[in-house]
Amino acid sequence: MSKKLTRRDVDYSKWYNELVVQADLAENSAVRGCMVIKPYGYAIWEKMQAALDKMFKETGHQNAYFPLFVPKSLFEAEEKNAEGFAKECAIVTHYRLKTDPKDKTKLVVDEDAKLEEELVVRPTSEAIIWNTYKGWIQSYRDLPILINQWANVVRWEMRTRLFLRTAEFLWQEGHTAHATKEEALAETKQMNDIYAEFAEKFMAIPVVKGKKTESEKFAGAEETYCIEALMQDGKALQAGTSHFLGQNFAKAFDVKYASKEGGLEYVWATSWGVSTRLMGALIMTHSDDKGLVLPPKLAPNQVVIVPIYRSEEQLEEVSKVARKLETDLREAGVSVKFDNRDTHKPGWKFAQYELQGVPVRLAIGPKDIEKGTVELARRDNLTKSFVQQDEVVEKVKAIMVEIQNNLYQKALDFRESNTTEVDTFEEFKKILKEKPGFISAHWDGTDETEQKIKELTKASIRCIPFDAEKEEGKCVLTGKPSSQRVLFAKAY
Amino acid sequence: MSKKLTRRDVDYSKWYNELVVQADLAENSAVRGCMVIKPYGYAIWEKMQAALDKMFKETGHQNAYFPLFVPKSLFEAEEKNAEGFAKECAIVTHYRLKTDPKDKTKLVVDEDAKLEEELVVRPTSEAIIWNTYKGWIQSYRDLPILINQWANVVRWEMRTRLFLRTAEFLWQEGHTAHATKEEALAETKQMNDIYAEFAEKFMAIPVVKGKKTESEKFAGAEETYCIEALMQDGKALQAGTSHFLGQNFAKAFDVKYASKEGGLEYVWATSWGVSTRLMGALIMTHSDDKGLVLPPKLAPNQVVIVPIYRSEEQLEEVSKVARKLETDLREAGVSVKFDNRDTHKPGWKFAQYELQGVPVRLAIGPKDIEKGTVELARRDNLTKSFVQQDEVVEKVKAIMVEIQNNLYQKALDFRESNTTEVDTFEEFKKILKEKPGFISAHWDGTDETEQKIKELTKASIRCIPFDAEKEEGKCVLTGKPSSQRVLFAKAY
Repeated sequence: MSKKLTRRDVDYSKWYNELVVQADLAENSAVRGCMVIKPYGYAIWEKMQAALDKMFKETGHQNAYFPLFVPKSLFEAEEKNAEGFAKECAIVTHYRLKTDPKDKTKLVVDEDAKLEEELVVRPTSEAIIWNTYKGWIQSYRDLPILINQWANVVRWEMRTRLFLRTAEFLWQEGHTAHATKEEALAETKQMNDIYAEFAEKFMAIPVVKGKKTESEKFAGAEETYCIEALMQDGKALQAGTSHFLGQNFAKAFDVKYASKEGGLEYVWATSWGVSTRLMGALIMTHSDDKGLVLPPKLAPNQVVIVPIYRSEEQLEEVSKVARKLETDLREAGVSVKFDNRDTHKPGWKFAQYELQGVPVRLAIGPKDIEKGTVELARRDNLTKSFVQQDEVVEKVKAIMVEIQNNLYQKALDFRESNTTEVDTFEEFKKILKEKPGFISAHWDGTDETEQKIKELTKASIRCIPFDAEKEEGKCVLTGKPSSQRVLFAKAY
Repeated sequence: MSKKLTRRDVDYSKWYNELVVQADLAENSAVRGCMVIKPYGYAIWEKMQAALDKMFKETGHQNAYFPLFVPKSLFEAEEKNAEGFAKECAIVTHYRLKTDPKDKTKLVVDEDAKLEEELVVRPTSEAIIWNTYKGWIQSYRDLPILINQWANVVRWEMRTRLFLRTAEFLWQEGHTAHATKEEALAETKQMNDIYAEFAEKFMAIPVVKGKKTESEKFAGAEETYCIEALMQDGKALQAGTSHFLGQNFAKAFDVKYASKEGGLEYVWATSWGVSTRLMGALIMTHSDDKGLVLPPKLAPNQVVIVPIYRSEEQLEEVSKVARKLETDLREAGVSVKFDNRDTHKPGWKFAQYELQGVPVRLAIGPKDIEKGTVELARRDNLTKSFVQQDEVVEKVKAIMVEIQNNLYQKALDFRESNTTEVDTFEEFKKILKEKPGFISAHWDGTDETEQKIKELTKASIRCIPFDAEKEEGKCVLTGKPSSQRVLFAKAY
């Protein structure tokens, strides 16, 4: 059994790291900055993938697969994108090892097998994909192209943290091509909305939809839309981004189409992605000092059944009821695990499933057999109750919905009580220190002020919210006029 | 519209390459030897993945994800495995690009960002995984570990062909750890059986299950089991392999467990995989001179509906029927596409779906509206018939089963009529030349003879079939005694 977690109020960062490892979600590997996603963590990621993939397909997108490597000449073709990633990309220079002449048990890079052109391990795939789209697009009939890719990407980060920032991570990247600017903008918005819907309905995480500032947007994009979430420690986490790329990549790779009217036009582009970073957001939104708390819609096991017994005979009786419940729950569409391992005691199992965030635990012992009951424990609010065996299925189904809603509401309440409107810079600094969270403040719209505030407070502009009301005001730092509040926060 | 395919009897290899590209399955990319898997090809791969993943999970396996990179020191830890892959691996040596001082628009490798230890892009993951398992396994209670990974791997092949041999390919790799040799051997067999079942039931490809010879087995394995299929041109294709790794990796990475009896033992291992190569097998087993032929269980669209009309009014009437059929078929679990694009003529659509191997095409025109019929065309045997509209669903469902069985039977008949028992080396050479396929012949069991036959004929031993009867005989080359026939063939 793993040791107790550090409490969140003692050291939030330590709590997070311990939780990720102890709940069997992921661990560091022998490769600097690369993680191993363990089966339990991967099962949650698979649930996220399935839900997102369905939403992508329902909106007309198809999956495809493009190469892992980007030749340097393609990588550098779109200037801003190349600049944005040049400092953090892994580069393949050779294609063979040979026996070390000094030590026959070792291998060394074979200098005779140097590549003519170096290959960049994709940090993102715009370059390789737009170079491919060039061959696919001739006429307006070939548009739109609506493609998504599930893949691994590599960004050589210096300071890494499990799920939140790793050198290699898993993600999906959508890359679409359109005949008109309007269509591409609509796609950019649609995908950001899909991310928001996914975050709220499946992850039970409330998010703010908005636009990034010039300095925070994706390299190579004209505009970046995003969803921003607030973690329990008052830091913001960017949970997904959708980029309107304008004609930047079409121009860099010379992708034009013959329009209906007979002209030759550059194609309009979008790209959008979410990654295994979402696992970090999920953990830091709902979990507590006892461990992970999972929304039922993403829990690999929604229910676990633990038998309590002192004799073989009792085990047999208890198992009969457990097996029946297992079957009934499964038939009702609930994922359930009956843990009848005799290598671990019930107490160990209780702690383990609490740590792993299983939404509902059912325990059945000899007394329950007498009374026709089971003990039902909810992970979200840690309450227990006794339920009649023949009511378990209906009760569990109702509780699943309750837990899902409860987690969302709790996170929303937290965000609302940690979002503060601020009108002076003194207040800004005070709030950041005393009650960190989202700060809604006026900003004069200049890059200079944004950077200055970041320097002074470490808070950045998370987004210019789409739903903010127009409101005349004065920049919190410079006092210059502003027409809308923006959201500041320290961020992951 | 794409041009006509080269006929198979004219140039099989050319036919294959043209088909893969024209049917929108895959294409070459800007990266040497790496392919782009296009949406239609990827949709087939997704169907394969879903079916296999289900079979893996039903047998107790879980998915996980391990790093793309293998540090050189881990890579070389298991000697035979390292030797096997050293000559074909991509190596990351640097982690940053910088602006070229000679040309500010270009980027060059930043020599200040050289890695202390080179990273090998995984050609397979035994090394990184067993280095991880070391931390997971202490006692017999931690065993077995039954893990699968869906991932991309890289093997720097010099001569590449779409799907069949590419520098980067997609695959799944299972890696299991067991307390006993018997359990590991049973797992090796189980997974080979699952591959065979998948190939036969889903891909409609009959396979021979068997064991590889010493020289053909996986580097680092004690035994390699495999499934072998026969392509239309008489060449064999290895469609899946399952390896019993003995204690090789456990010893290389020092992975021991405390046994129930209190001892400390090395762990036993297996690994098993299939890859996007299966796409090649699928294509070369069923397709014809008109294009792809897909078994219904793997077809992204099992049915396509094409409307025939000359006026808006006719289109409206025809669409009403088509929409109803679309809904009914979908409700019956059939995947269906109603192609009502007005940018392409019916004839173009017919040719396109034939090329793309859609199992059933329904065409509805004004005459069908009068008669209450639709025209149903089968892709497998190219027959057409008229079906009453209210009988379409039942008919289509029955035909799906028929096509699936028919394709399997046809492939089995082909394999049987192209498997020849041979007792002399003259006959061996003659058959290879005149009627290529599997050759069942006696072999003296030595590596020397195997290599000699390969040199002389280019045919290798595909496997020692599991179900072959014991039969006394003489080696086809040396005349030395042999107790069982083995399968020879030229191979992909």
